[in-house]
Amino acid sequence: MNTQLRHSAATPAGAAPEARYTAVRALTADLCQSLGPEDMGLQSMADASPAKWHLAHTTWFFETFLLATEQRDYRLFHPDFAYLFNSYYNGVGEMNPRALRGLMSRPTVAEVLAYRAHVDQHMQSLLRDRGDEPGISALLTLGLNHEQQHQELLLMDIKHLFSLNPLKPAWRPLPRVSTSSAAPLKYVSRPAGQVSIGHTGTGFAFDNETPRHPTLVPAHELADRSVSNAEFRDFVRDGGYRNPIFWMSDGWATAQREGWHGPLYWDEDLETEFSLAGWREIAPGAPVCHVSWYEADAFARWAGARLPTEAEWESLAVTQTLAGNFLDAGLVQPAPAAEGDLQMFGDVWEWTGSAYSPYPGFTPLGGSLGEYNGKFMINQMVLRGGACVTPADHIRASYRNFFYPQQRWQFAGLRLAKDA
Amino acid sequence: MNTQLRHSAATPAGAAPEARYTAVRALTADLCQSLGPEDMGLQSMADASPAKWHLAHTTWFFETFLLATEQRDYRLFHPDFAYLFNSYYNGVGEMNPRALRGLMSRPTVAEVLAYRAHVDQHMQSLLRDRGDEPGISALLTLGLNHEQQHQELLLMDIKHLFSLNPLKPAWRPLPRVSTSSAAPLKYVSRPAGQVSIGHTGTGFAFDNETPRHPTLVPAHELADRSVSNAEFRDFVRDGGYRNPIFWMSDGWATAQREGWHGPLYWDEDLETEFSLAGWREIAPGAPVCHVSWYEADAFARWAGARLPTEAEWESLAVTQTLAGNFLDAGLVQPAPAAEGDLQMFGDVWEWTGSAYSPYPGFTPLGGSLGEYNGKFMINQMVLRGGACVTPADHIRASYRNFFYPQQRWQFAGLRLAKDA
Amino acid sequence: MNTQLRHSAATPAGAAPEARYTAVRALTADLCQSLGPEDMGLQSMADASPAKWHLAHTTWFFETFLLATEQRDYRLFHPDFAYLFNSYYNGVGEMNPRALRGLMSRPTVAEVLAYRAHVDQHMQSLLRDRGDEPGISALLTLGLNHEQQHQELLLMDIKHLFSLNPLKPAWRPLPRVSTSSAAPLKYVSRPAGQVSIGHTGTGFAFDNETPRHPTLVPAHELADRSVSNAEFRDFVRDGGYRNPIFWMSDGWATAQREGWHGPLYWDEDLETEFSLAGWREIAPGAPVCHVSWYEADAFARWAGARLPTEAEWESLAVTQTLAGNFLDAGLVQPAPAAEGDLQMFGDVWEWTGSAYSPYPGFTPLGGSLGEYNGKFMINQMVLRGGACVTPADHIRASYRNFFYPQQRWQFAGLRLAKDA
Amino acid sequence: MNTQLRHSAATPAGAAPEARYTAVRALTADLCQSLGPEDMGLQSMADASPAKWHLAHTTWFFETFLLATEQRDYRLFHPDFAYLFNSYYNGVGEMNPRALRGLMSRPTVAEVLAYRAHVDQHMQSLLRDRGDEPGISALLTLGLNHEQQHQELLLMDIKHLFSLNPLKPAWRPLPRVSTSSAAPLKYVSRPAGQVSIGHTGTGFAFDNETPRHPTLVPAHELADRSVSNAEFRDFVRDGGYRNPIFWMSDGWATAQREGWHGPLYWDEDLETEFSLAGWREIAPGAPVCHVSWYEADAFARWAGARLPTEAEWESLAVTQTLAGNFLDAGLVQPAPAAEGDLQMFGDVWEWTGSAYSPYPGFTPLGGSLGEYNGKFMINQMVLRGGACVTPADHIRASYRNFFYPQQRWQFAGLRLAKDA
Repeated sequence: MNTQLRHSAATPAGAAPEARYTAVRALTADLCQSLGPEDMGLQSMADASPAKWHLAHTTWFFETFLLATEQRDYRLFHPDFAYLFNSYYNGVGEMNPRALRGLMSRPTVAEVLAYRAHVDQHMQSLLRDRGDEPGISALLTLGLNHEQQHQELLLMDIKHLFSLNPLKPAWRPLPRVSTSSAAPLKYVSRPAGQVSIGHTGTGFAFDNETPRHPTLVPAHELADRSVSNAEFRDFVRDGGYRNPIFWMSDGWATAQREGWHGPLYWDEDLETEFSLAGWREIAPGAPVCHVSWYEADAFARWAGARLPTEAEWESLAVTQTLAGNFLDAGLVQPAPAAEGDLQMFGDVWEWTGSAYSPYPGFTPLGGSLGEYNGKFMINQMVLRGGACVTPADHIRASYRNFFYPQQRWQFAGLRLAKDA
Repeated sequence: MNTQLRHSAATPAGAAPEARYTAVRALTADLCQSLGPEDMGLQSMADASPAKWHLAHTTWFFETFLLATEQRDYRLFHPDFAYLFNSYYNGVGEMNPRALRGLMSRPTVAEVLAYRAHVDQHMQSLLRDRGDEPGISALLTLGLNHEQQHQELLLMDIKHLFSLNPLKPAWRPLPRVSTSSAAPLKYVSRPAGQVSIGHTGTGFAFDNETPRHPTLVPAHELADRSVSNAEFRDFVRDGGYRNPIFWMSDGWATAQREGWHGPLYWDEDLETEFSLAGWREIAPGAPVCHVSWYEADAFARWAGARLPTEAEWESLAVTQTLAGNFLDAGLVQPAPAAEGDLQMFGDVWEWTGSAYSPYPGFTPLGGSLGEYNGKFMINQMVLRGGACVTPADHIRASYRNFFYPQQRWQFAGLRLAKDA
Repeated sequence: MNTQLRHSAATPAGAAPEARYTAVRALTADLCQSLGPEDMGLQSMADASPAKWHLAHTTWFFETFLLATEQRDYRLFHPDFAYLFNSYYNGVGEMNPRALRGLMSRPTVAEVLAYRAHVDQHMQSLLRDRGDEPGISALLTLGLNHEQQHQELLLMDIKHLFSLNPLKPAWRPLPRVSTSSAAPLKYVSRPAGQVSIGHTGTGFAFDNETPRHPTLVPAHELADRSVSNAEFRDFVRDGGYRNPIFWMSDGWATAQREGWHGPLYWDEDLETEFSLAGWREIAPGAPVCHVSWYEADAFARWAGARLPTEAEWESLAVTQTLAGNFLDAGLVQPAPAAEGDLQMFGDVWEWTGSAYSPYPGFTPLGGSLGEYNGKFMINQMVLRGGACVTPADHIRASYRNFFYPQQRWQFAGLRLAKDA
Repeated sequence: MNTQLRHSAATPAGAAPEARYTAVRALTADLCQSLGPEDMGLQSMADASPAKWHLAHTTWFFETFLLATEQRDYRLFHPDFAYLFNSYYNGVGEMNPRALRGLMSRPTVAEVLAYRAHVDQHMQSLLRDRGDEPGISALLTLGLNHEQQHQELLLMDIKHLFSLNPLKPAWRPLPRVSTSSAAPLKYVSRPAGQVSIGHTGTGFAFDNETPRHPTLVPAHELADRSVSNAEFRDFVRDGGYRNPIFWMSDGWATAQREGWHGPLYWDEDLETEFSLAGWREIAPGAPVCHVSWYEADAFARWAGARLPTEAEWESLAVTQTLAGNFLDAGLVQPAPAAEGDLQMFGDVWEWTGSAYSPYPGFTPLGGSLGEYNGKFMINQMVLRGGACVTPADHIRASYRNFFYPQQRWQFAGLRLAKDA
C-alpha cells in the first residue's frame, strides 16, 4: 500500500523559479494519480468543480496572467479555453457559467494534460529567461499559491463527489488516525491590549492580508486545541441539532431545511464518517471537521464559549511554530494534537467570529487580479490556520481563508474562546 | 471518413435467440465507439442519462428479469448494481435517485463493460440452453426491445450533452442531408368510419399497444409528408413564437419562461442547427425536428390545421410499407421524403393530438414489468412512426411512443391533419 | 341560525333576461355576505383568487364582452380595471400577473361593489332594450354561466384560505350531514356499442361540449354511487398512500413531495375534515371529496377497478334525472346518496379517465372568447356531474369540467368503473 | 390637505409611564388611519408583514413579556394569539410561519383593535400601580422601543405593498420635497486614534449596543452629507448597473438575477420614484434611498471612496446634535440637508462597511428576550442614524440597525468615506 504522494507538497525554499514551478505543478497532477477520466469530469454541486477543471483553470491562470502578457509571440493553446476555464475574472472576458462546469466532457483529460504540458513548457522557458525579474517573480508566486489553493479545493471536491456515490469509493488508501482521546481542554489566558495583525511584509501574502494594522483585543482565553470529535458528539447527543436556542436564526433555518443531524460526513450513528480513504470510524480525539460556521457557533454557545476573533487568533498564532498536520504529511485527515502543540496550524481550518471584511486601508491588486479576493468580502466568515489538505508552505499566521457560514465541504473545525 | 456503424441495427429476422441478442447488444456498444469515458458519465439534465448508465441499465434489465430468475446459481455481478441501475421499477427494490445518475464516476466505463460481458456470457449460455422456451423467449424479446429504446435515448442524450458544450463536439461525422426542397404538401382524404387499432397479435408489441380495439374516425385529411424545416421557419418568421393566439396556455407559459425562439437546436439565425455531426445548415426540405408538442400544436393552428389522432395516423400507416430513414440507414438525421413516400415511418416521431391513455380493456404486464408502461399513462402525448435514431426493426404501425408536451430533446416533428 | 342563502341559486327558467341577470348576480354577492373585507382580498395559492377578484372579474366580463361592444357611449368604470381583472384573454389586452391578484388591496371591496352596481345598471338597461336580440342573449347566457363558474370557484377559494388559518374560521354555519353509511356498492352493467356524446343542441352549452359525435364504448360496469369517505378511509388505512404500486409515476412523486396522507382537508386522524362550516367529523357515507386525479386513480387501482371514460359516464347520465345535491340545496357539503339515486349529479365532481381533449371537429368560439376553453385542452383531465357548490341550473349531462391531475381544492371525488 | 399625524411621534420626555405608553401606542394606530381593512391584511413579500400583524404583534409583546408575567390574574385575550403573533421567540412557544402572515384574514382588523384596547387597558392599570418599579419600567421601555421599530416597519411594508399595485395608491398626501440641489460634497477630516463606541449608559439602549468598548480608527475622511439622488443618478447613467467591476460578486449576481436598474422605487426613466404619497419626481438634492448594501458599496467604489465603519460613523455622530428629518417632522421622505447639517441623523439609514457582529464582551438579555437581537448577528450589515420614518426619540448615536446586504425596502442610503 503506497500512501505517499510521489511529489513533495513543499516548494523547496529558496529554489530557482523553474524548480518551484515544477514542484507545485507536479503535485497537482499527483493528486489526480488515483483518479480516472470518469472521476475528473464530474461536478457534485454548484460550489464544487471537476478535477479536470481545476487542472485546466490553474493552467489558464499562468497562460493568461503570465504567458499572454509577458511571453513574446506566445500563442494560446486553444482559442476557447479562456471562455471555458476563466473562473470569475470579469476583467479578462466572458466565462462559462459555473453550474455548467460539470457538463463539459470535452476537452478530455488527455487534452487538458496536453494543455498543461504546453503551458509548462512555455513557462519553463519564460522562467529560465526572466524568472528573476520582479514582475515575473511576483506573478509566478501568485500563480503557484493560486494552484495550491486549487490543490486543496480538488481534494474537497473529490471527497464530496465520492461521498454521494453509493459505491463509496476512496480517493486513496490512507493511514489510520490515532484513536487516542484528546487531552483535557485547557485555556490560554491572553491580556487586553493593542496588537498588530496582517502581513508582516516578509514573503508572499495575498492582498487580503494587508495592510498590517493595529487593533485592540480584550482580555480573553483561547482553548489550547481544536474541539474534538468526541466533544462535538456530546453536543449532538445533548440535542444540539434539535434546540434552536443554541443557533443563529439563519443557521437554525438552514439546519432544518437541509435536515442536518451532525457534521457533513458523519453517519447518523455518530460512529463513522466518510473520509478520503472511504468510511472510517470517527477518531474521538481528532478535531471535528466539516462543520459550517453555524454549527461551530452553535457548539460554542452550547459550551458556554464563543469563537475567537481574527485578531485574537492571529496574535497567538504568531507565537507558535508554523508546523502541523498538512498535506505534506500524507495523512490527509485531522488527527489528535501532539502534546504541547496548540494545533493552530494544520488539521482543520478554524472558524473565527470575524466577518470577512477588508482591513482598514485595504487596496486590491491592480487590474483584473484585483478580482482575486476583494469582491468576495461580504457574506463570508474568516477561517484560520490551514488544514490537513493544505500544502505546508502555503500557510502563514496572517492567512485569511473565507467561506459562507452554511458551507461544510471544506475541512473546517473550531477552537473555543472566552472573555476573561 | 467512416460514417458506417460497425454493426447492423437490425436484428436478423428469424435468427436464433443468441444471434438476435448479440446483434442488439453489439449495436449499443457500437453507438459508444466514438465516445470517451469522459463523455459517457455526464447527465446534461434530469430527463437525460449518462451513456454509461444506459449501458449498465439495459444489462441490469437482462440480469434482473432473466438471469436472476431463470439461471440457476446465477450470481449477481455486483450487489449494489441493482440499486444503481434500476430505473423506476419499485417492485424490485430501491433505486438511486434519477438526478444523481450523473454523479456516479464509479463504476467506470471499463467496469460497466465488464458487467456487460459478464451478463452477455451468462445470457448466451441461457439462450443456448433454453432460448426457445416461450417464457425465456418473450423476456428476451422484451429485453431487446428495451435495449433498442435505450439506443435511441443514448443518442438523444449525447446530442443534448454535446449541444451544451462550448466546443460543440460531434458524435460522429455524418453524411450531408439533401438540401432539396420538399415537394408541395398535399392531403390524403380519409373517410369517416370504424377502424381497429392496436397490436394485431403478430410479433412483438408492448403492452400499451393492446388490446386491439375498434374506434371511430371522422372524415379527415392527412398530409402526405411531415412538416418541413422551411415550413416551420415560415411560422417562426411570421411571429409564431411571439403571438399567444396560436398556443395552448401551458405552452405559451413554457415558451416564455424558457425563452424559446425556435426548435431546440436551431440557432437564433434560423439557418443552422446542432446535429450529431456538429453544426449544420438547416436542410429546408427535411422534416422539422426537436419541437415540443406545444410547438407542433401551435404550428398546426397557425397553418389552419391540427394534429392527427392516433387512430387517424395508425389506420393510414397500416397501409404503408414499414420502411424509412431509420438508424440502420446511418444518416441519423431527418431527410426530405422520397417521391411517393408518405414518410410515416422514420425521420421524425410525429406528435399526435392523442393523450397517452390506456386503450379500452388495457391490462399491464404482470409483476414488476407491469411498471414498464402503465404508470406513465398520464400527462403525456402519443408520438408515432419512429425516427432516424430508431432501429428499423423496433418500429411498427401500432407502436405508441410518449413524451411530455414540453419535451424537445427527442427527435420529434409533426404531420398536419384536417377535418374533411 | 340562518343557513339559507337569501337568493336562490337558480335562474328562473324562461325568465326575462333582466331577471336572469339579476338572479345570478345577486347570488354571487350573497355568497360573500358572511365575508369581511379582510377575507375578500386574500389569495391563498396561485391557483386561487381573492373573492374580491371574482366579484370584479365577472363584472369585467360583462363590461368587456357586452357593454363595451354593444352599449353605445358606454364609458368604462375605470381605465385600469381591464388590466386588473382580465384573467387570461390575451386577445383583449395585457393583464395583471395571476400571482399578484392577492396583493391588490385597492380597489377596495366597496369600490368593487360600486363597479358591480355600475355595470349592473348598464346591463339592465341594455337587456331591457335589446335583451332578446340573439347576439345579446347568447353573450348574456355565456356571461351568466361564467359567473356561475366563479361562484363555485369563490367557495373553493374561501375554503382553501380558511383551512390555512390557525383560527379555522367557518364560511357559514351549515346543516349537519347525515352520518348514515352508504348502501353497499353495486355495479350497473352497460353493453358495448356506439353512443353519441356532446351537447344535444337544446339550451346553452360551452364550446368544449361540441360537436356532438358518435363514439364506441366497450361493455362495462359503472358503480351505482360515488366512492364514500368510509371506503376511501379503508384505502388510506390499508397503506394506500405508502405503496407506489397503486399510483401513476407522476402521482407518486407528487404525493411524496407534498407529503399527502389523505384527501386535502382530512386531518391526520382520518376522523375529521375541514368544511365550509369549520371542522366536522367525516361523514362515512358521504362521497369522498377533495381528492386529486392521482388519488382517485390510485384508489380505483387498489379497488380492482378503474375510472370511467367520459363517454361511459355521459351515456349513463343522460338516462338520469338532472337533480342532486347542488348549491341551491344549501347543504354545501357532499352527502350520502338517497336510495335509488345514482348520484351522478351533484355532491362531488367525478374524475374520469379521459384527458381533456377537443372533441372531433371541435371549433372554438370566434374572437377573444375562443380563449375561454380551447387553450386549456392539454395536461388536464375531465370531471363530470357537478358538485354541492355548483348552481343546479349550471350543469348538464354533457358538461365537461377540467382540472390538472394534481389539483385537489375543487370538490372532486370519483365513481368506479370496470370492464365487463 | 392634512399631512399632519394626529399624535406626536415623540414620547414626552420624562413623562409618566402611562403617558409614554399612550403616546407610542396612539401613534401606531394613527399610522393606520388612512388604511382600510383590505390594506392591513396583505403581505407583499416574505420580508414584509401586514399592518394588522404589526398592530397585533406589538400588543402581544406587552401581553407576553409584561401582563402575563407581572399582572396577577391576567387572562390572555385569545388563546391562539400567542401562536399567531409571536414573531421569532422560540423560547416562548411555537409560531405561525412567517410566510403565512398574509393569509390570515381573521382575526379582523376590528378584532385586533379590540385586542389592543384590552391590552392597553390592562397595561394602563399595571403602569398606574407599578410603573415605577425598575423591572416594569425597563420592560415598558423595551416594549415601546419595540413598537417604534414596528412603526417604521409598518411604513416600509405599506410602501412596498402599494408600489406593486397597478393603481399606485398613496398612503397619504405628503408635502413636496425641496427640489434644490445638494451643496457640493465636502469631506470632514478625522484623525487616527482610539475611540469608544457603544451605549454610554444613559437612557435606553438595545443589548446589541453594549458593551461600550474602545476601538481604533485610522485617519480618514467622512462626507459632510449623504449621497444625493443626483449623484446616484450619475452612477446609473455612467453604466453603474452594467459593469461588474464596481460590484461585490454576490451583489452583481443579485442585481443580474433580479434585473435591478436603479434604486428600488425608481422608474426606468430615472426621473420619478414611488413614495408614500404616490409617484413623485425624484428630488435631486435629497439623499438617495432604498438602495441595498450592494448598491451602496458599488456606488462608493465607482466614486473612488468607501463606506464608513461603525466606529468612524459613531465617533463623528456623537459630536452632532441628535436632530434631523424624522417621522415626527411629517415629511416621511428624505430631503436635502440644511446648511451646516451633517445629516447624520434622519432622512435615510446609512449603510456602513461593518458586519453586524457582537461587540467584544456582548451578552444578550436573559431569557426569551435574549432572542431579540443576538441571533441575527450573522449575514447582515449595520446601518446608522435613523430615517424619515423613524420616531425621533427612538434614535441615538450608538443605535445599530441591521439588514441583509440585498434588502432594499428599508429607507437606506449611504455616506462616503475615504482613507486619509
